[in-house]
Amino acid sequence: MTDATPLDGLIALLARLPGLGPRSARRAALHLLKRRDALMLPLAEALAETARSVKTCTTCGTLDLTDPCRICSDDTRAEGPLCIVEQVGDLWAIERTGSFKGRYHVLGGTLSALEGVGPDALGIPKLIARVQQAGTGEIILALNATLEGQTTAYYLTEALADTGAKLTRLAHGVPVGGELDYLDEGTLMAAFSARRSVE
Amino acid sequence: MTDATPLDGLIALLARLPGLGPRSARRAALHLLKRRDALMLPLAEALAETARSVKTCTTCGTLDLTDPCRICSDDTRAEGPLCIVEQVGDLWAIERTGSFKGRYHVLGGTLSALEGVGPDALGIPKLIARVQQAGTGEIILALNATLEGQTTAYYLTEALADTGAKLTRLAHGVPVGGELDYLDEGTLMAAFSARRSVE
Repeated sequence: MTDATPLDGLIALLARLPGLGPRSARRAALHLLKRRDALMLPLAEALAETARSVKTCTTCGTLDLTDPCRICSDDTRAEGPLCIVEQVGDLWAIERTGSFKGRYHVLGGTLSALEGVGPDALGIPKLIARVQQAGTGEIILALNATLEGQTTAYYLTEALADTGAKLTRLAHGVPVGGELDYLDEGTLMAAFSARRSVE
Repeated sequence: MTDATPLDGLIALLARLPGLGPRSARRAALHLLKRRDALMLPLAEALAETARSVKTCTTCGTLDLTDPCRICSDDTRAEGPLCIVEQVGDLWAIERTGSFKGRYHVLGGTLSALEGVGPDALGIPKLIARVQQAGTGEIILALNATLEGQTTAYYLTEALADTGAKLTRLAHGVPVGGELDYLDEGTLMAAFSARRSVE
């Protein structure tokens, strides 16, 4: 391939997917070309179809086929806590546990002075209005345990203080299956200070 | 996402790309949904367009927009050696070096008794006919330095012996930038036995 061809264009687009670089994009393109009917054309169709049909829920910010999404339309979830997450992928991760039965609010990012992301860009005024209107009892701040996530959680703690909702955050500690020897000091300190009595 | 949606279908298809698993496929799908116009729809279009327009060259077996491909149609390459490779990706790798000016023959795989891949499946009779017809002076066996590649190279050496072409193979040795300490014994032995006098 010396000149630009559709194949070069495809490889350039594939290389922009997270987890793929130029080399793996070439390998993926060859993989696809060997499986035109079984994989390549179905993938083209699935991309177009998903781009057309998947909407952002105007209530919680997640992606679904309907707006409001299935979680926001599910009345059995109305009584549960409101869980605030950074990204849609975080919501999916929590849903896969099957243990949370409330609703969500997807911020879509974290506060960042450097990148000009303020409270308005994350829809925080809308979130406060939603909490006040719903009379939410508990808000779970399920943000990443990163500097950005925790800065945003701190801001939210202040911003949501007047709503009357109880604010909680996820527990820090040793990951299930984790080995102490491989843990960073911060996690180990958090696990120590949050130690619990053995039943 | 609790039920099967177009998004689930997209993630399942993305997870079948080499280098992507279920987790990275989910991340890729979210990445795409955030960039519908800039990446997702162009990728859908590029996949469909490439699947439609890219052909397999009936002469050498590579992928291109034309059949015969641009390399087989390039008369300036007619005089050079014939380079035999396993896969189209190997041809691309050699073309990127810009140092080879002959033509190619893409086998599409290696001989495998276990998987029932015999000489006919790799088009070796056609290759012999091509070499005889073109009066090829040199055949470079640029197969992978794996057991499968070298078994196939050995078979080809026998099969092409009567064509009168000179048979060569790629040199083994220390990779450029490689450190001896990290090399396997086989490569180091090959590099020793193929040592060359310093100019």
